[in-house]
Parts: sequence; C-alpha cells; structure tokens
Amino acid sequence: MSALEQALAYAGENHEPALADLKSLLRIPSVSTLAEHDADMAAAAQWLASRLTDLSFENVAVMPTARHPVVYGDWLHASADAPTVLFYGHYDVQPADPLEEWATPPFEPTVRGENIYARGASDMKGQVVAFLRAVEAMVRGGGLPLNLKFMIEGEEEIGSPSLADFIREHKELLACDLCLNADSGILDADLPAITYALRGLAYFEIRLQGPKGDLHSGRFGGVVDNPAQVLCELIAGMRDAQGRVQLPGFYDRVRPLSDEERADYARLPTDDAWWLEQTGAPALFGEGGYSASERASARPTLDVNGLLSGFTGKGSKTVLPARAMAKVSMRLVPDQDPDEIHQSLLRYLEQHAPPTVTWEVESMAGAPPAIVERDSPAVQAASRALEEVWGKTPLFTREGGTIPVVGLIQQLLGVDSLLLGFGLPDDNLHAPNEKLHLPTYYRGIETYIRFAHALGAR
Amino acid sequence: MSALEQALAYAGENHEPALADLKSLLRIPSVSTLAEHDADMAAAAQWLASRLTDLSFENVAVMPTARHPVVYGDWLHASADAPTVLFYGHYDVQPADPLEEWATPPFEPTVRGENIYARGASDMKGQVVAFLRAVEAMVRGGGLPLNLKFMIEGEEEIGSPSLADFIREHKELLACDLCLNADSGILDADLPAITYALRGLAYFEIRLQGPKGDLHSGRFGGVVDNPAQVLCELIAGMRDAQGRVQLPGFYDRVRPLSDEERADYARLPTDDAWWLEQTGAPALFGEGGYSASERASARPTLDVNGLLSGFTGKGSKTVLPARAMAKVSMRLVPDQDPDEIHQSLLRYLEQHAPPTVTWEVESMAGAPPAIVERDSPAVQAASRALEEVWGKTPLFTREGGTIPVVGLIQQLLGVDSLLLGFGLPDDNLHAPNEKLHLPTYYRGIETYIRFAHALGAR
Repeated sequence: MSALEQALAYAGENHEPALADLKSLLRIPSVSTLAEHDADMAAAAQWLASRLTDLSFENVAVMPTARHPVVYGDWLHASADAPTVLFYGHYDVQPADPLEEWATPPFEPTVRGENIYARGASDMKGQVVAFLRAVEAMVRGGGLPLNLKFMIEGEEEIGSPSLADFIREHKELLACDLCLNADSGILDADLPAITYALRGLAYFEIRLQGPKGDLHSGRFGGVVDNPAQVLCELIAGMRDAQGRVQLPGFYDRVRPLSDEERADYARLPTDDAWWLEQTGAPALFGEGGYSASERASARPTLDVNGLLSGFTGKGSKTVLPARAMAKVSMRLVPDQDPDEIHQSLLRYLEQHAPPTVTWEVESMAGAPPAIVERDSPAVQAASRALEEVWGKTPLFTREGGTIPVVGLIQQLLGVDSLLLGFGLPDDNLHAPNEKLHLPTYYRGIETYIRFAHALGAR
Repeated sequence: MSALEQALAYAGENHEPALADLKSLLRIPSVSTLAEHDADMAAAAQWLASRLTDLSFENVAVMPTARHPVVYGDWLHASADAPTVLFYGHYDVQPADPLEEWATPPFEPTVRGENIYARGASDMKGQVVAFLRAVEAMVRGGGLPLNLKFMIEGEEEIGSPSLADFIREHKELLACDLCLNADSGILDADLPAITYALRGLAYFEIRLQGPKGDLHSGRFGGVVDNPAQVLCELIAGMRDAQGRVQLPGFYDRVRPLSDEERADYARLPTDDAWWLEQTGAPALFGEGGYSASERASARPTLDVNGLLSGFTGKGSKTVLPARAMAKVSMRLVPDQDPDEIHQSLLRYLEQHAPPTVTWEVESMAGAPPAIVERDSPAVQAASRALEEVWGKTPLFTREGGTIPVVGLIQQLLGVDSLLLGFGLPDDNLHAPNEKLHLPTYYRGIETYIRFAHALGAR
C-alpha cells in the first residue's frame, strides 16, 4: 500500500475515534468573549497541544497573547522539495445563548440522525478536529507528505485582536509556502467546493457638524444648513441607481471576471429566486450585466451600515441637529486596496461636502481582498482531492464576506490562504442548535489526506 | 380726564402693586409636567380666578380638563358695536432644573437691577399679570372699552394636549372677534414690535423596509438594496442646493412678500453676522434672493429632524440594515396647508421610492401657518399703542416658529390671533435664571391699555 492508501485506510477504519475526539473537544465550553470561561479556554488550548504532541509534532506550545493563547506546533521533516503548509484554525466559540432554544445542551454534544449538535461543531472545532484526524491518519499510516505548522488561535470570535501582533512577533516560526484556512464551508453536502477568493473591507465612520449646538428648526430653519440633510446628499452621491460606486477611481483596480470564472458562477445553484428567498427583500438590486451571485462576491459594493442624527425617539421634536453620523463600508474585490479606497473617500468628501458643515472620517476596519490563483498548485491539489472524494468536479466559489486573517497572513507572511473547510449553510453558525453533518465530516478528513498528498507529491 | 387717561394714571401710580401681584403669582411653582406640583397648578388657577372675580368678571370658573384646568371669565358689557377680544395665556411653567445654576431660587422672585428673576417671569406669568394689571387700571379708571374673555390654560409647556377638546366643547362661550395672544415678545427693550405672522408645521416620520431582517453586508451587499442608502437618496432629492423644497407643488400656495414687508425686514437688526453668531455655523445657507431673516420666518423650509438606521454604537458592525427611519418636517408659510403638504410628500415618495423597499409615512404633528392682515383694526390698534408708549414706530415681524394654539383658534373659532407680549430675547426662557425686564413690563401694561382703547374706540 502506498502512504496515501495507508492513511485513507486508517481514516476509514477510525470513524468512531474521530467522533469521540470531536465530542471531547466540543465538551469544553471555550467561549472567548466571557471571562468566566477563561479556564475552559486554557483547557481547550491544552487539549490541542496534547494532540499535537501525541502526533510527534515539535515545538508544541500554548503561547500567551494579551488575551487567549495561540496553540503552535510543527513537523518539518518532509523531503527537501516538499512545501510547508501553515494550518490556521481557532478553538474559541460563540456564546451559546439563548440557551432555552437549544434542543440539547450546547456543550453536551449529541448525535441526532446524521448530525452532531453542539456549540462550535461547525464553527470550527469540527474542521480543526477533521484536519487533526487527517494528520493522525497520515502519521500513523505512512508519514506526512509535507511540512506542517499549526497556528490555532483563541480569539477569532472576538475579532482576533492579538493575532496581528502574534504573527509579527513570530514571523520566522510561521514562515511557510501556503496557509490552509479551514474556517470555511461548502454549499451543499453533495457539492464539493473550493473558496478561492474573498472580498475585502473598508469601513468608515463619517461625522458631520453644522451649527455649534442643536437649534430650533422654527427659529433657524432656512438660515442654517442641516447636517443630516447634507449627510444624506453626500451618501446619495456615493452610488448610482444600479449601486455602482461613484467614489473617484473606485473601479480602477477591480479585476474583471474571466470567462472561466463566469462559467463556474453559472453552475451555482443560487439563482435570483434563491437570493429573494434568503433575504425576503421586495426585489433584488445591483449592477446590470452581473448575476446576483457574481454581484454578491466578485463585485465591489458600498453599504450604509448605520445612520444617526437628531431626535430618534417616539413623537416629534423640531430640532435642527448639530451633528450627523453615518457608518459606511465598502466590500472590496481583487486588486482593490483599503488604503486607496480610504483616500478615494476623502477626495470625494473634499470635492462634495459644502462649506456649511465640517466633517471628519474615521477608518474603523480594513482588510484587503484575497484571491488564490486558480492554476496554483494548492488549488489544483484541493480540486483533485475533492473530485476524488465526492466523485464530481468541485465548484470554484468566491465569498462575499471578509476573513481578516487571510489578509493579515498575506500582508505579514506574504502567502496566500486556501480556504478548505466543510461547514454547510444550514449549520446554524452563531445560533442555537449549531450542528455538523457527520458524513461530510468524514469526507472532509479524507479530503485533507488526499489534498496533502496531492500537494506534497507535485 | 378721559377713560383712557384715568386708566393710564391708575397704572402709572400703581407700579408697586403691579410688582407685588407678579411676585405673588411667581411664588406658586406651577410646573405642569410634574405630578408633585398638581396642587400648585390648582393654586395658580385659583389665584387667577380670584383676580378675575375681584375685577368684576362674570362666569369666572376653573374649568377641568383631562389634566390641568383652564381659567375662564368674561365681561361683556361694552357698547353694542365694541369688539369681543379673547385673551389667551397660560399659567404653567417649565421645570426649574438644573437648580444649582440659579443665582436665586426659581420660585422666590428676586429683583436685581432692572430685572425680576423667577421661573415663569417672562414665559409667561409676567405677560399674563401685565394684562390683568391693564384690565384692573381700566376697570378702576373709567371702564373697559371692549368685551373681554379670558382663556388661561395650564398645559402649554406640555404641548396643550387638552386645549383642542376644550375649545371644541366651549365654542359658544369662547366666541369672539379676535384672540389676543400674549405669549410673545419683542426684539429689544427699545424696539417695540408686533408679530403678525407665524410659520406652520408639517412633521412626518418616514420608515423604509428592505429585506425582512438585518443582513450581513458581506454575504448580501450588491444583491439587496440598502434601505438606509435609499432613505438618503429620497431625502437628498427633497431639496436643491439652495434648500428649495422639491416636493411637487410645494410652493404653489406660498404668499409672496410684499414690498412693505421687505422694507420692514430691512429695518431688523438681525444681519448675517448676527445669525452666524447665534448659530455658530461655519456658513449660512438658503434660498438666493432672500435675506437670512426673511428665510427664517417668511419662507418655507424642509429639515431632517432625526435619522436612524442599522448599527450606531461604537466600532464597526457590517450590517446591511433591514430598516431606516427619518423624521422630516416642513415649516410652512401662509397660505400653505399641512394636509396638502402631507399629500405632496406622499406623491413624492410614490414617484421616487424604488421597488426594492417598502415605505410608510406617519404624520406626527401639523399646524397651519398664521397671519394677521397688516391693515386690520387689531394690528393698527397695536401699532398705535406701541408707538405712543415707545415713541417710535413698531417693527412688524414674522416668527419662524409655530404656536399651535394660534392655528387651533383659527380653525375652531375662526378668528385671527394678534401676538402682543413683551418678553425679550435674553429672558432665559426654559433655562436657569429666567427673568423679566421690569421697565418693559410697565410699558407692556400701558401698551395693553392703549391697545384696548384704540381697538374699542374705532
């Protein structure tokens, strides 16, 4: 038997221990945002470190950060030309409340039908343990075909506040050829998929000030401009009737969709009826010439996330407000840059804000868009692995959301991230009755094994 | 001595009792909004009723309403062709807090220099007592030259919730030729003025709904329209760059300013520098072809009073909000009509709201604009009285604000209101250290006497 066959045989014979492992980690209520779970956080980190040690990993450590530790470990004994892959995951979970909506307790993992129910089952202890089980299968069954490093953080659900500093401080330790990010999913249990691109984010708070204090709209209306009105005018000018963003140079660096990509989009099961059903909107919206699925992930957008000015309680108050605030964010696509978009927004406001108000812009969050080239060895290896396991060609998908760690790793370590995880859209992420589909979990383990061999053997 | 001369002599000789009367009413803490002052409210009403009885008024009554009573009394024995004037005032006051900012206690009236300090001194017990003193001077000194009715309410500072019902129920009792509303003021102690017009109000809450619930802007941005953005676009279209309102037919019924009115505006001391100083705005704003003072009172406006949508806390949340709300109000001038403006807003939204949102409009408040013809007997009588007392021609002014009772009386009793009161702009209305300028108070008493005789003698 080849090393691959040995590993696959091991995995196939060990579904029971794979389920037991998963349950064991799911029982630890590692809620990162609640201080009363700090001991559980430490226990979950220790659980992972012990597993890495069991698997003969080296330099295994629970490394402190300002808040919750990062679990690290490496195995760097593959052949000289084998690539080094950095596995990224997180061991923290969202809070479980509202508890009364759970059919079974969130930290007592329970199998019902084909699913296992527990907080963190899909997001993302299931993905982390699937990869660990794949590594175990390879270690026990013929050896690892590539060099491997683990970086499993405990702060993803609170916005990864310590991760940038951690990566900066341990750049040498984390050096690699590729990041494998398992915090991802597929569209359907029967549809294997690879996410090869993410949108980035540029998020701003815009604050306008008119008169020095709130005024009476009867005494002063008509003499003094209204900052809430001006804010509306500025926001109205930021896009056209199709939603095309009007900030100067906004589209200059947008990478057009290739014919191959558009053909893949056409294979997706998400048609207009699906998007209408998902959102409950009276009608869909967006740029002409692109399908809804293309617009949601491969085209940049601008959205108002919040508006606040003047009197917002019940009833009427005839105030001419002194201040108005909007939170406005743009989803960016390759090769847009959040800093350039920030400058573009400032230019727009310089050009259009009237002299009757003063304004300021605060940049609240930013993340570059990400893309892994479709013909890269990593994408090719993942594609081959998925096709072998599912028996069908995987979908190549782009995600509309932003995974900040992907941009961070690109920026600080200079490598792309391949998103390969096996969550499903109905897994109830961040909600009661979170679950993981067990047949997909076992397929995921097999896929990780085949991916490692495909990538290591090239 | 003529009856006028006798009344003026009485008033001139009785400044001390006029001050004592005022102090007596100011000592009663008649705060309408605070239940713990309900007994004080009753005491203030009783104080006024007793004074009317002392002055030989008939049908004197403290008439109950849903909350605080209205004080009524009449004297209808003037000559057959004498007009009947309804005096409108209120005996309630604003709360006094913050107490620590008062130099002397708010309900211990204190004279310092030319002013008396107390809550309600200017708004409007000083005006009510000035008129009562004028009536006393006429009753004691030769008789009243016209028929007089009093309607003094106790709910003005809480929005007069019972007044419309009260007027409706007592239409016959309150029937009159003119309302004299003393809840008013002049621009400067040396500048006599008559307010002959008020702006009206139409106040709306506009609510937009897009998707059925808040969405993730990463997953859905570009596919679903953003109700906050749509709201901004709709509001932006409601006015042009000069602030001219773009609702259909909005200006159709606006009465143009006459040359005489514009000449009066030119006499006002309120130039652009004054308006900038008052507001602290970076620049003034408004329709070309009109001075700031004209724009603030004789031209209609549209203002955003409140905006609310999505996430408005600290930091960033990438929500595509399901709902957006704006409070928008228009100040109206003669002869605009709040109901027609409501229809105009609905037409505008029907024409411009896109199919990607649903919307609703709630009318929150409405009051018609008001104007007393400049050549009417009431305005002529007031003008003559002011000129005789101050020795200079009064200013004719229009107010930018709205006094709902003026519209109410026009609508329910079919008569105009003359605004004749003697508050000053620096009287600290609704603020700590409210005051009344005593020389202006005594001039006010004399003016009311001369006004009554000028109107009764025509």
